[in-house]
Amino acid sequence: MNEIMYKPIGVIHSQYDNTNDMPIQPASAQGIRGTVEIYTDYAMGLKDIEGFSHLILIYHFHLSNGYQLIVKPFLDDNMRGVFATRAPKRPNQIGLSVVKLIKLENNIIHIENVDIVNNTPLLDIKPYVPDFDAATDVKIGWLTKSKHKVSTMKSDSRFEFYF
Amino acid sequence: MNEIMYKPIGVIHSQYDNTNDMPIQPASAQGIRGTVEIYTDYAMGLKDIEGFSHLILIYHFHLSNGYQLIVKPFLDDNMRGVFATRAPKRPNQIGLSVVKLIKLENNIIHIENVDIVNNTPLLDIKPYVPDFDAATDVKIGWLTKSKHKVSTMKSDSRFEFYF
Repeated sequence: MNEIMYKPIGVIHSQYDNTNDMPIQPASAQGIRGTVEIYTDYAMGLKDIEGFSHLILIYHFHLSNGYQLIVKPFLDDNMRGVFATRAPKRPNQIGLSVVKLIKLENNIIHIENVDIVNNTPLLDIKPYVPDFDAATDVKIGWLTKSKHKVSTMKSDSRFEFYF
Repeated sequence: MNEIMYKPIGVIHSQYDNTNDMPIQPASAQGIRGTVEIYTDYAMGLKDIEGFSHLILIYHFHLSNGYQLIVKPFLDDNMRGVFATRAPKRPNQIGLSVVKLIKLENNIIHIENVDIVNNTPLLDIKPYVPDFDAATDVKIGWLTKSKHKVSTMKSDSRFEFYF
């Protein structure tokens, strides 16, 4: 299988028109609101979603162009393998955020803890289920030393296409 | 943006040649081993990954064809909106599993808790970081009643293309 084609099912709206000064993770975006607009063709698939408090959004880093296998992440001064980071310049530019569901209004989902740039194309929504998605006895490698920085660290434009 | 094109960065190997009797989530695949083969072009991006105990695998449900907005999930007898489930027949057939990293050997990652069918194309790997990915005060909607079934429930072929 050489190429896999996806089509956006909607678009994510946020207060961040570019990646400057954007939270780098939902953990640093507490209380930041946004919306997910699901295209009406897919809105029926939202049935039952309001029962869940948290959603996994899977989206396309549309401002990112090309990739680097070795990157300098926001939270570190060392070069790291891209798959050991959450940096956007990945071979497939897929982003993932666990956000809080506030309410559903027709085809619009109001969300909180938004670390996503405005107009990001949405690929999928999955319900967040701790029994499926939360691991125990976790080790976090190079992030151990710098994870405390995540709540205050903002992004810059290093991973945008015009950089 | 109408179409987004991705290319597999590798392939996931497991003991499940089809979805019959496969665990439906990593939670029901405790101890089940598999491997992730990263194509050598991308292997440099694996630097530093061994520090992490768990990885988020993002992959393409290659046996799934077409989609349904309303599905009957493995864990329920009721019809649910597809975005309130983890069923494979999604508009974009993207799968996500949090697996345990056992060891890295060159471009092969040995993993555990594998609920993925053999030869699944891999799209991305992200390090699992509880501060980014684990939410608290979680509600899980319709799954509340049936989540205890996840550890024993096996899949069937209902979401495969020949079904």
